[in-house]
Amino acid sequence: MTSVKPTLHTALSPALLQLYNVSNSIVVIIDVLRATSTIATVLHNGAKCIIPVDSVAECIRIGKQIEGITAGERDGHVAEGLSYGNSPFEYPREFVSGKTLVLTTTNGTKLLHMALDKGAKKIITGSFVNLSAVCNYLIEKKRPVILGCAAWKDRVNIEDTLFAGAVISRIKDHFDINCDASQIAATMYADAKDDLYEFLKNKEASHYHRLTEYGLEKDIRYCLSEDTANVLCVYDGGKLTAAKPRAL
Amino acid sequence: MTSVKPTLHTALSPALLQLYNVSNSIVVIIDVLRATSTIATVLHNGAKCIIPVDSVAECIRIGKQIEGITAGERDGHVAEGLSYGNSPFEYPREFVSGKTLVLTTTNGTKLLHMALDKGAKKIITGSFVNLSAVCNYLIEKKRPVILGCAAWKDRVNIEDTLFAGAVISRIKDHFDINCDASQIAATMYADAKDDLYEFLKNKEASHYHRLTEYGLEKDIRYCLSEDTANVLCVYDGGKLTAAKPRAL
Repeated sequence: MTSVKPTLHTALSPALLQLYNVSNSIVVIIDVLRATSTIATVLHNGAKCIIPVDSVAECIRIGKQIEGITAGERDGHVAEGLSYGNSPFEYPREFVSGKTLVLTTTNGTKLLHMALDKGAKKIITGSFVNLSAVCNYLIEKKRPVILGCAAWKDRVNIEDTLFAGAVISRIKDHFDINCDASQIAATMYADAKDDLYEFLKNKEASHYHRLTEYGLEKDIRYCLSEDTANVLCVYDGGKLTAAKPRAL
Repeated sequence: MTSVKPTLHTALSPALLQLYNVSNSIVVIIDVLRATSTIATVLHNGAKCIIPVDSVAECIRIGKQIEGITAGERDGHVAEGLSYGNSPFEYPREFVSGKTLVLTTTNGTKLLHMALDKGAKKIITGSFVNLSAVCNYLIEKKRPVILGCAAWKDRVNIEDTLFAGAVISRIKDHFDINCDASQIAATMYADAKDDLYEFLKNKEASHYHRLTEYGLEKDIRYCLSEDTANVLCVYDGGKLTAAKPRAL
């Protein structure tokens, strides 16, 4: 008896998500610079949960209501009216442990809510900092997977594509991948993996430029570092919480 | 005085076209397997013009009206009610010279009409078979460019991405390229250029599989061959005609 492998697809932009069978799938929300890197870091550092919201107004409203930390950025800056931004370095353990964060970002939280609206079976978030936790979970679950890149205002970006490629390079033997976007992502990652930071720099990735203009090289290097905040970040009932990763 | 270079963007799928300033740009319609390869071939072989239409019904209607050759495919086969398909080998000079073709295809003609609806400044079609004609035209015109990949039912595909990369690799010095999708296309092409056919085969490109299942390896090899039908294919007033390419 041959076992049928589950499918894996990559949506390189939120505008392409609807092409795939979301309601049947685990959707991995990917927003490497910086939402999903920060999410993993905050949960790894012991926060109780993160409530991702679409708008700054809702972030403020819920933040007040639950006495949570309001956090989020628009175009790389702390959004007006919120207390903190989207840098993983703003959230050390001594600050976030046991707390609830209410988070809104330019692209990542938007895609998460799209996946939710389309009835995703399960939603998790991924970035290089929790790569192994994501891969182990997907292999274990044996369900169809959609790697959803948050991109930049629907424009395909290099760093999210690279993370999709990193996941694919690790788990491809467990999935049936008939998806050119996934092949593109895997090819890009194979080219880049020896030095992701240099690759982004050399390819003049638009987001690399945007963030370095704000002096955020350190953030970028952190967001590209593998397994430095290796928790599985699961969305359920309106919030993201950490689940213990399985050993490799 | 420094001269400002025009911008260049790549839309990896028709679903991403609206992210770019179409009305200000030359849009290159890219449908390597096989619409834009066949278009260049038909015009190179002396056809008077090609009328691209959205639907099979309209293809039949206009074909009758002007006594043109009705041509088109749906899912790789000659569409029902049309006389010819989408293979470049169906259109030798002795057949098409002086004739008018009415053409409908799964993805290519659809994207062309999208670009038209969005008020593109100029629309041309491109494939490897007329790569030089496309590149020379874009360099000469000094206007913003959008490389529009027809993809497969909005899903990003490898072969159209590779052609975008081929164009970029040739003309990048003449343009201001702040576009991750263009960087991805150029990276893919750099990886693939030594043997495009083997690359598609090794990457398990979905369209490669679709066409080889129909026994169309010969078509694929032709569609990837450089400058074998090197005419500039310009859309104007409802039809595509050949313009003489400039010498390199």
